[in-house]
Amino acid sequence: MYTSLEALRAAVPPADSTAAAGARARLDDLTKPQGSLGQIERLIVRLAASTGQVIPDFSQRAILLAVADHGVAVEGVSAYPQVVTGQMVQNFLAGGAAINALARAADARIILVDAGVVADVPDHPDLRRLAVRRGSGNIAHEPAMTADEATAALLAGANLVRAECEQGLDLLAVGEMGIANTTCAAALTSAFIGADVRATVGRGTGIDDVTLAHKWAVTTAALRRAGFHQTRREHAHDQPLSVLGELGGLEIATLAGAMLAAAAQRVPILLDGYITTSAALIAAALAPNLTAHLFASHQSAEPGHALALEHLGLTAAHGAAPLLRLDLRLGEASGAALAMPLLTAAARLLREMATFSQAGVSARDAQS
Amino acid sequence: MYTSLEALRAAVPPADSTAAAGARARLDDLTKPQGSLGQIERLIVRLAASTGQVIPDFSQRAILLAVADHGVAVEGVSAYPQVVTGQMVQNFLAGGAAINALARAADARIILVDAGVVADVPDHPDLRRLAVRRGSGNIAHEPAMTADEATAALLAGANLVRAECEQGLDLLAVGEMGIANTTCAAALTSAFIGADVRATVGRGTGIDDVTLAHKWAVTTAALRRAGFHQTRREHAHDQPLSVLGELGGLEIATLAGAMLAAAAQRVPILLDGYITTSAALIAAALAPNLTAHLFASHQSAEPGHALALEHLGLTAAHGAAPLLRLDLRLGEASGAALAMPLLTAAARLLREMATFSQAGVSARDAQS
Repeated sequence: MYTSLEALRAAVPPADSTAAAGARARLDDLTKPQGSLGQIERLIVRLAASTGQVIPDFSQRAILLAVADHGVAVEGVSAYPQVVTGQMVQNFLAGGAAINALARAADARIILVDAGVVADVPDHPDLRRLAVRRGSGNIAHEPAMTADEATAALLAGANLVRAECEQGLDLLAVGEMGIANTTCAAALTSAFIGADVRATVGRGTGIDDVTLAHKWAVTTAALRRAGFHQTRREHAHDQPLSVLGELGGLEIATLAGAMLAAAAQRVPILLDGYITTSAALIAAALAPNLTAHLFASHQSAEPGHALALEHLGLTAAHGAAPLLRLDLRLGEASGAALAMPLLTAAARLLREMATFSQAGVSARDAQS
Repeated sequence: MYTSLEALRAAVPPADSTAAAGARARLDDLTKPQGSLGQIERLIVRLAASTGQVIPDFSQRAILLAVADHGVAVEGVSAYPQVVTGQMVQNFLAGGAAINALARAADARIILVDAGVVADVPDHPDLRRLAVRRGSGNIAHEPAMTADEATAALLAGANLVRAECEQGLDLLAVGEMGIANTTCAAALTSAFIGADVRATVGRGTGIDDVTLAHKWAVTTAALRRAGFHQTRREHAHDQPLSVLGELGGLEIATLAGAMLAAAAQRVPILLDGYITTSAALIAAALAPNLTAHLFASHQSAEPGHALALEHLGLTAAHGAAPLLRLDLRLGEASGAALAMPLLTAAARLLREMATFSQAGVSARDAQS
């Protein structure tokens, strides 16, 4: 059990370059033209670097779905009322949400976490209660949470994942739900990359032009209040816990801790969209080794998502481009669940394909 | 059983707009913000239009893998010798190729077809013999096959798929293997879209600059010989069977027939890369209704592939963009198999998600 943030940060290992080289060598000996599986080959090499295994096993898959409310919802930055957060928890428990269908399709278990929902949600055996408070503060006017609350939420997420790893977990998709949380993701992204809110604020689940302009103003107010507006970029990197407390959210804190604990066990982390990627910005600032264990499932319709992914090195230039580009903007780990079969297929290729010598297939023509 | 090409062409139905509208209406009633699943929603609507079912069932999935040799291989346009084609058939039968691992991952059966392999491949219960001849002619100097051979190969592919549909088939991925077949795909694409070979010829499984320039020359020679060089574009559309006979290949003919028969049964067709898409150019010229049943699994690293997809309307502008962009250049239906879980997941969303009223979730905020 992690009892301090320092212990958690120190537990995240770097990429395993030996395993990565082993995967690269094996790929080049399999019965296919070298490099012909394109990005899937780059994915395979990164999966080896994360897991430390040339041929990883992803038979025990889970989707961590963290849910919380956000005080900033009162500013009218979302197309939906806050009450929807609690209603969706009930929908997740009943199995009727998009992620329920997608998790079944990916044959992954869902770990549903109440990270701080305002509504009274009845107890349920499938609902994990990790809320350190009910709903975060309205970041336009006050911090989202105290530093102690941020630390507690991080450690709660980390210890949950640590326990799941002990029961068996090879691949972790992360997702979230929480009305108004794209506003927090935008504020976090602006704080970390020093970008104006016009580059980081998007339409979330579908707001109109007037609401979008209002969302810019609210996000700008939050950044100014917290002292992380534009020029303070370096400051943000030095104080990730402070950024989280000022501008984050309870599910974002839980997810950041969960990612660090998964990485500590060399379990690859499949990010979903903008909010989970903003949580990764926090976690990677706490432990830079984390990026070796992050995999971008998709690039969403939110404009700031690409900026956050680039900041984490999850781009084609690093051999780590997002696997899907489907204009998704749902959250709930929906993109991560859709991409999960690509990772399991990648692992099967390395495990099951024959080598040229095994199959009696001629290597390349000596003439060309 | 199809005994004439005319009967096969006439059997392909148009899009079912009623089913498409039903799927659109159901999508908008499910517990997610409208449109938030982006391209997956556009995919769902097209799947309904193809199948004629608001909620399609894709539980019986197959991958048609057609293999043949190409006379043009003697021109040195590939990085591999022709003998590899037969060796790969053995590898497919032994289960050691990429597509074997990917088919298992997608839980799809492989229908392996010898459409015209030159090497002596021993009989095997899993190998379907549909070869109307062993290897096609060298298109740089002679037709690939006669019009009668092209028709016979088309009908053989069609009748194979018709029989498979009678046994149970809801979703058909198509793939191919055949040394030098990207040269034929490039020639076909140039003939249909009227583009210079520099836009349609690529590096295939990985040729160098010198071989690429040679491949341009060989492809140009084939187009000139056959009379389908650039300015003859309209001519090609009027005579698809002639284009196929002059510039195609035996697996390409088999696949074109297979697609028409699948579409005739309202079984959606998941294209793989450049060669299967060139087969679709032939099939769609024979029966324009076909395009309603075509789904682009990925956009490959071959430059001509995007042009061929655009010609078929398989683009974002038509709500039919390729699902994956992973720089694949293997063939074997590898991209189609990787994308197949997206289609099965899409069907599950429509089948399993709750509606707003069922789940007791509030619709959008009246304020926004």
